[in-house]
Formats: sequence, C-alpha cells, structure tokens
Amino acid sequence: MQAELERAIESVTGKLPRITAAGRTDAGAHALGQVIAFGTESHLPEESLELAINARLPRDIVVRDLREVAHSFHPRFDARSRTYRYVIWNAPQRSPLLSDRAAHIRKPLDVERMNRALRLIVGRHDFTTFVSSSAVGRRMREIICASVERHGGEIWVELEGNGFMRQMIRSIVGTLIDVGLGRISVEEFDEIARSGDRSRAGATAPARGLYLLSVQYAEEADRRSAHAEELL
Amino acid sequence: MQAELERAIESVTGKLPRITAAGRTDAGAHALGQVIAFGTESHLPEESLELAINARLPRDIVVRDLREVAHSFHPRFDARSRTYRYVIWNAPQRSPLLSDRAAHIRKPLDVERMNRALRLIVGRHDFTTFVSSSAVGRRMREIICASVERHGGEIWVELEGNGFMRQMIRSIVGTLIDVGLGRISVEEFDEIARSGDRSRAGATAPARGLYLLSVQYAEEADRRSAHAEELL
Repeated sequence: MQAELERAIESVTGKLPRITAAGRTDAGAHALGQVIAFGTESHLPEESLELAINARLPRDIVVRDLREVAHSFHPRFDARSRTYRYVIWNAPQRSPLLSDRAAHIRKPLDVERMNRALRLIVGRHDFTTFVSSSAVGRRMREIICASVERHGGEIWVELEGNGFMRQMIRSIVGTLIDVGLGRISVEEFDEIARSGDRSRAGATAPARGLYLLSVQYAEEADRRSAHAEELL
Repeated sequence: MQAELERAIESVTGKLPRITAAGRTDAGAHALGQVIAFGTESHLPEESLELAINARLPRDIVVRDLREVAHSFHPRFDARSRTYRYVIWNAPQRSPLLSDRAAHIRKPLDVERMNRALRLIVGRHDFTTFVSSSAVGRRMREIICASVERHGGEIWVELEGNGFMRQMIRSIVGTLIDVGLGRISVEEFDEIARSGDRSRAGATAPARGLYLLSVQYAEEADRRSAHAEELL
C-alpha cells in the first residue's frame, strides 16, 4: 500500500514523498482507517489534491479525507488510541465472500463467555502472554474498551487501546476463540493472560480477519469534548 | 472454478468427473448460487461426499448442498429460472472493500426512476438491444420479476428470468444507470429497449458487480406448492 501511495503522490506533486503512518498492518490485514502524513510543497487546495491522488490510486486504495496539518504532526507518536476489529465467520460452512476477510470457526462460539473473558484485559496490563517473542521494549499497554458482538454469522471482536504490539490482537483473539469453544474457562483465560507465558496463548488468529478501523488523536478528542460542552 | 471443482471431486472419487452447470458466469462475476451436476460411482453418503469435496476446495469455493438426483437431471436444461443481483456502489468515494464486488457510480442514482424503467422489461420481450452481437439464436426471453433497491451506499438490481444471454444483464444495468443519472428518460429507456439497436444501450456494466444468486427448478416449485397446500 505504501508504495502505491508514494507513487500516486509523486505523480501529482512531482516529488517522491516520505510517508509516516499511524500503525503497521500485518500482510493480509485491512487498513480501513489508516492515517498517514507526508510533506509537500504543492499549493493545490486540499480537495483538489485528494481528488488528484485518488485518481492515480488503484481501485482497492482510497484517500478518504486529506487535510493540512501542523508541520510537527506525527500520525504514530501523536495517536492517543487505535481501534481494531477482528472478524470471525462462525458457521459450519465456509463463506467464499469472506475467504480473505475473516477467520472461519465452524463450531458455535459462546459470545457471552468471550465477552466475560475480554473484559478482564480492559485497563493497563502487561501483555507479554500475547506478544511474539521478537517484540522488544515494555509490554505494558492499556486497553480502553473491548467488546464481542454477533452480527448474523459474523462475530466482531473490537479493541481500542493506546498501542498494540506485533500479533497482540491476533493472539488475544486466538485465545478468546478457545474460550468461545469451551476449550478453556474464563478463569483459565485470566490466568493465561497474567502468566506472561506465550506458550499458553491460543493459536494466533490469521491476519485476514484483522481491520484497523480508526486512529484517535488528542486534538479530535478535545474538539469532541468542546462540542459536547456546547451541547450542555 | 470448474477446474478446481473437477480436481477436488477427482481426488475424492478417483475419477475426473464431467461437470455440467446451470449457467455461465462471466470472468470476474460471482457464482454464489451456481448449480452443477456430475456422475460418480462413489457410494459415499451425500453428507460425507460434500465434506470430503469441501475439504479439498480452495477457500473461495464451497459446495453448499450436495444431493443425489435423477440420472436425467440437467442443471441447465431443467432450470425454470435464474436470479441475478447486480451491485452498484453509489457514493462519491471508492469503497476499497467493494473494489472487486461492485460497479462504482459517484453521482447519486435515482432509484425510483430506475425502478420505473426496469418494470417496463418485465414479461416476455425481444432483448436484442441488450445482447452482444455475437449471440446467436432467438432473443426472446422472459423476465419474471425485477427490482432496484437501495441498501445503505449500495444499490441492488435484481432480475429473475427464464434465461439470460451473454452480457444481457450487464447491458440492461448499464442502460438503467443512464436512467438513474438522468442522462435518458424512462420513456427513452423504453424506446431503446424496443429498438433492437445495440448501439443505443448504455455502456456494459463491469462483471465484478454481477452475482448469480440462485437457480430455480420445476421440482422445487412443485414441492413448494405442495408444502403450501399442506399449510392451508
């Protein structure tokens, strides 16, 4: 995706841009709400720049909103939180339309149990259990909110957090699936999450079910609360 | 799809089967409700055969229901009607998730006008206007029912008919889009449909928006009416 974006921007502005992005997405995952930034000397108005870049992007990539920002803005470091959705197709038969867009679990999942387990990891915790051993640095992260919901044959696991490490969501979802299938209890999930023992986590769920939905910034939150105040 | 199916069936039954199908689907279109038949000497029960074939098919193909039928059954010649859906993504911006699954029309379409036009071709008509010039044979076909509906940002054009010729649906949809955009009036649509003049039809809509939803057979209809009688 980065290469296609760079090429499209270059062909509009005449210069190969340096792009910074809010977060990684694993190969095969879906970056619906990715935020990127680039510098340009172009004087085109925002709307024209957006249209011109979109006209040069392939059909499966789109710039949804292009805005001028402060020079100091950094999509990754300034992000306060990120929201991801993991989609599970939960039915005896495969769904060809979801073949690259969801994990497939044939046996019925108990969404209520999955919710009880997921609630246990909301808040500030050490997520060593759910992190690929190659991850470096501190493993404390904060999950701000989390839910599991059924939508027809699909089950959506949604997580908002201040930061996610490599494979962390896919590993949490894999272990949640074990809870949903009754392979482990909610209490065992809790114990595993606290253990810091990677070998006790469930199988890492495939990247194809993972969607980066949105990235939240402080400024937006401030604007929202200002707006909320106006409404009072 | 045919090659993958043949290979999967061969690896289960030990014999390369001869497959017959209910209808063609253009390259890039989606065969959600295709019906195929093959002969086999396998004595596996229906359910085991279905599971074994599904286990050998790639993720984007699935056998949804496998049943033993009379030797004389032919999925194409015995079909009474076929139902297709054409999906249009109608919004100013592209939808990356629908990039291979819908046509994209940026300007708002007038669904009510499209419905009025579509209703004019329900019934038995000569569809020469909407048929690729390479099609041979009679061009009389019957459209049994037809509708245009908005579902969020998507517009679904659904057609049930006793038979469709090459590109016929995509050509009808392309001309309907001209009606929806106000490029031609409902009366002009009617005139074009009756003219038999291919050059007056709209641009053929791309295959990626086309879905074969289901194929209806006489026997099923009989069963349905028998069931309805029981309920009386």
